[in-house]
Amino acid sequence: MATKYVIIGGSAAGPKTASKIRRMDPEGEITMIQKGKFLSMASCGYPYFVGGVFDDPNMLIATPTGAQRDPSFFMNVKNIKALTSTEATAINREKKTVVLKNLETGKNSEIPYDKLFLATGANAIMPPLPGKDLEGVKTVQSMEDAIYLKDRLKNDDIKKAIIVGGGLIGIETCEALELGGVDITVVEMQDQILGFLDWEMAKHVETHLKAKGGKVITGVGVTEFVGKDGKITGAKLSDGRTLECDLAVVSIGVKPNSKLASEAGLATGQIGGIAVNTFMQTSDPSIFAGGDCVEVTNLVTHNKAHWPMGDAANLQGRVAAQNMVLGNCVEYEGMIGTGICKVFDYTAGSTGLSEKQAAKLGYTNIMTAIQAAPDKPGFMGASPIIIKLVADKTTCRLLGMQAVGTGDVSKRIAIGAMAIHGKMRVYDLVNLDLPYAPPFSPAIDNFITAAHVLQNKCLGRMEGISSLEVKAQLDAGDKPFLLDVRGADEFEQMRIGIGEKLIPLGALRKKAEELPEDKTAEIIVYCKISLRGYEAYCTLKGMGYTNVKVMEGGVIAWPFGREK
Amino acid sequence: MATKYVIIGGSAAGPKTASKIRRMDPEGEITMIQKGKFLSMASCGYPYFVGGVFDDPNMLIATPTGAQRDPSFFMNVKNIKALTSTEATAINREKKTVVLKNLETGKNSEIPYDKLFLATGANAIMPPLPGKDLEGVKTVQSMEDAIYLKDRLKNDDIKKAIIVGGGLIGIETCEALELGGVDITVVEMQDQILGFLDWEMAKHVETHLKAKGGKVITGVGVTEFVGKDGKITGAKLSDGRTLECDLAVVSIGVKPNSKLASEAGLATGQIGGIAVNTFMQTSDPSIFAGGDCVEVTNLVTHNKAHWPMGDAANLQGRVAAQNMVLGNCVEYEGMIGTGICKVFDYTAGSTGLSEKQAAKLGYTNIMTAIQAAPDKPGFMGASPIIIKLVADKTTCRLLGMQAVGTGDVSKRIAIGAMAIHGKMRVYDLVNLDLPYAPPFSPAIDNFITAAHVLQNKCLGRMEGISSLEVKAQLDAGDKPFLLDVRGADEFEQMRIGIGEKLIPLGALRKKAEELPEDKTAEIIVYCKISLRGYEAYCTLKGMGYTNVKVMEGGVIAWPFGREK
Repeated sequence: MATKYVIIGGSAAGPKTASKIRRMDPEGEITMIQKGKFLSMASCGYPYFVGGVFDDPNMLIATPTGAQRDPSFFMNVKNIKALTSTEATAINREKKTVVLKNLETGKNSEIPYDKLFLATGANAIMPPLPGKDLEGVKTVQSMEDAIYLKDRLKNDDIKKAIIVGGGLIGIETCEALELGGVDITVVEMQDQILGFLDWEMAKHVETHLKAKGGKVITGVGVTEFVGKDGKITGAKLSDGRTLECDLAVVSIGVKPNSKLASEAGLATGQIGGIAVNTFMQTSDPSIFAGGDCVEVTNLVTHNKAHWPMGDAANLQGRVAAQNMVLGNCVEYEGMIGTGICKVFDYTAGSTGLSEKQAAKLGYTNIMTAIQAAPDKPGFMGASPIIIKLVADKTTCRLLGMQAVGTGDVSKRIAIGAMAIHGKMRVYDLVNLDLPYAPPFSPAIDNFITAAHVLQNKCLGRMEGISSLEVKAQLDAGDKPFLLDVRGADEFEQMRIGIGEKLIPLGALRKKAEELPEDKTAEIIVYCKISLRGYEAYCTLKGMGYTNVKVMEGGVIAWPFGREK
Repeated sequence: MATKYVIIGGSAAGPKTASKIRRMDPEGEITMIQKGKFLSMASCGYPYFVGGVFDDPNMLIATPTGAQRDPSFFMNVKNIKALTSTEATAINREKKTVVLKNLETGKNSEIPYDKLFLATGANAIMPPLPGKDLEGVKTVQSMEDAIYLKDRLKNDDIKKAIIVGGGLIGIETCEALELGGVDITVVEMQDQILGFLDWEMAKHVETHLKAKGGKVITGVGVTEFVGKDGKITGAKLSDGRTLECDLAVVSIGVKPNSKLASEAGLATGQIGGIAVNTFMQTSDPSIFAGGDCVEVTNLVTHNKAHWPMGDAANLQGRVAAQNMVLGNCVEYEGMIGTGICKVFDYTAGSTGLSEKQAAKLGYTNIMTAIQAAPDKPGFMGASPIIIKLVADKTTCRLLGMQAVGTGDVSKRIAIGAMAIHGKMRVYDLVNLDLPYAPPFSPAIDNFITAAHVLQNKCLGRMEGISSLEVKAQLDAGDKPFLLDVRGADEFEQMRIGIGEKLIPLGALRKKAEELPEDKTAEIIVYCKISLRGYEAYCTLKGMGYTNVKVMEGGVIAWPFGREK
């Protein structure tokens, strides 16, 4: 007899699982239950729809060849019965049935399963603030939300908006609205936007966002939404200010929707997601789960994590489907924490652990390297990238990588992700054979150069200091000898302005009298990206100076304000 | 006493080695000998200079901040003595000296060394054809060559050109001249251009090149250059034709220049390059070598290879320098064969082994997968990429990857290169956590999808057939049932036209009567990219057909002419 598969959830993991089951079991009876009206929505595309990259919402639910993924598509093409506007209200594990409620008719029914897949997703977190039910206080989670924003933009109905929460979705939505001509302010309770980045890396993104006209307030929360006639007119902040606005997009995060599962007695984990093993199987062997409702293993930390990403959902669904049809045979071992985000002309990405995360997890022997460089030769029209590597000094293993800039960040994050997947060590990364030709990278790829800096530090050939540490020293009243070794013309065009002395690298040997007399004096040296800075470091060491440090990433990676 | 370092060669590996030595040894006396007039030329940039991406040849020898890398730069900035227009004519290993000849004055001199680095490069191969000394028969190897081509283009002095040899440099030069308005023909003796690709992958590049106006002749060699008044006027081909031209660029390859080394009694390898160990040390412990003059280990095949690439030269120089200063302490283990090439709007790249190379090396249990897909969601303006993976079926290890297309090929090749560096297996690649957001990739990255195809084949869940095999079957008079499962509209717009039947995937179950009655009949099924083809495959298997195959990559990856 044909196996009965029931899939609860029709967004990403659900349809992927249903389709893969069909390919594995042509005879199975597959039913997919979706609470909303739409199926297979490319929800990661909402900000680009709102921002006007495309205007037809149907593109979000179309196959690459333009077919609409609606119930008749699933039936005709895949022989999958898709029930939309239908809520699964309970699972009866003993009877092996799911109780359904038709949200249009209100009628209840029950459907039997042999194998059940849960893809109940995640819910956007809406804090219990006064005024949260005012019209114009929104999350961006559904097609309806996206269409709401798009329509208001089209009608020129948003003048000022605030984004509550400067994470990935908040920043993508910020860009979308900004492109739509809205005066926008991001309000972030933490001291930085894009929490997956370290502070100084996020600061570069913030600077770019501000240059594009967005406003950013960090370290401040929203305490109340205020309104008139049931519509939002402003938001009160924890610092006492009130910001006027006619839209507030709340994007402070999502939490796994594991209610149905836990009501059915399935195990959930410490983060509140449905607990699954590497086969994507819940505590009930007949029930599998995947996507935003589960928690999975972080392969770097070996802790459980909630990882609500479209790519992971698809991969997990593909694994679950194979195991549901054939018995447990393939595994999804986990994620490593790779994320990326476009912010106007900037890209910001991260994989593995940030320095901050590593510190939180108790790593005590962390080594980092910051490297700034053009992403290809100057004659090919290069754009800069700032890379930060995080490694364990004891094992030399790469733990994480971040990159920001207007250059090709996506490729470098992919390289970093592969290095972490491959459990590669710093010395495995210094001689990589990557695709080099002038249209695509410098002769030594940015990622490899960053690994060289890490190796130099590792072998004690270079002592680095981060811009953060330099700033902290200056703020504390320290007076290190600050040495900029660029050319005079470069210094005229752009300089940090923290009391630095300019001696071009080429003149360093001749101008020894301008350097401190005391060979033990602390000298902090840098250039535009700190390659010449490193050369100067070596020269100064050769001249007998014993306390020299390279400010990593140079002027380009300085995340604070500059004199010019 | 200060150590005396002598570096022979001033292009890529030489300056890198000299600079790195300076950073490690501030006191050392470093002398760099360069036969030509220029130093540190970005020779990979010549085609882009010729093609007009930029017009100032000084950009090829400038640092990222615009400083000219001339002898005074090396002296002032790095305290390196650079002797240009100076040839090293002999090495006296007993006396530890190098004999120099000043090419301007003709004067000889001798310079002592403690450590010597050889970066004598490679020579472009010029076959001993009649007419090879005519004006207008050129290789593209030096700044002077590049300036010659640029000047002739500027003076509108090239009407028709032929490129002899369709490798990387030939194809890049072809693009450059084509952009300059030249009528151009590539003549390649092999049956395909870009020999690092498999035939069907190269065919896609050839098709694009032809669409841009270039002409390509394969399987034919040049037998003679003909001329008038000492200038080239044409080339005779091995098929009897004569092509008119006023320029012939010969780019059939390079060979390591190991003459100086072998005359000094240093060991050379089976390919003719200078033999070095992983420390980049020659058979004389005081002499190191790197760049285009050496042979190195291919980490996939463990054979020696000549790998004249700018990125490898720099990495080898960095390794050699450390060992020359500190004693042997770091290793360059080898390359994996990564290359990439821009061809108008197309990118073609490869890493590891092609199927052809693997076969030549005696691998008998090779598995391949071809996958064609858009490089991001359709609503973000996707461009197609065709990926081919090559794996060892016994160990499941990824041996190689190729990618071509107008999409972001460079990132996918980088991912493949990392997978090969990391010795990853197919099952390590199916659940990668790569940077996903709609501006950068589909929810499941093209590389991962290709790994899925490979896994499906590996597990016996899909039988694939390449377009090459289908063509061969048809040519042999076989009559498999060819089934295109796209939509009728797609079929109208574009179709292969090899006697295929159209039954859209969604109609397959209803139109069973249009399929062969015999359930053992061979059915070859495909769609645009063969994702629906794979679904149809599963459906047909479910209907009881026992001999079904998916034509991998579908219509997009069909490398032969199409009906429309």
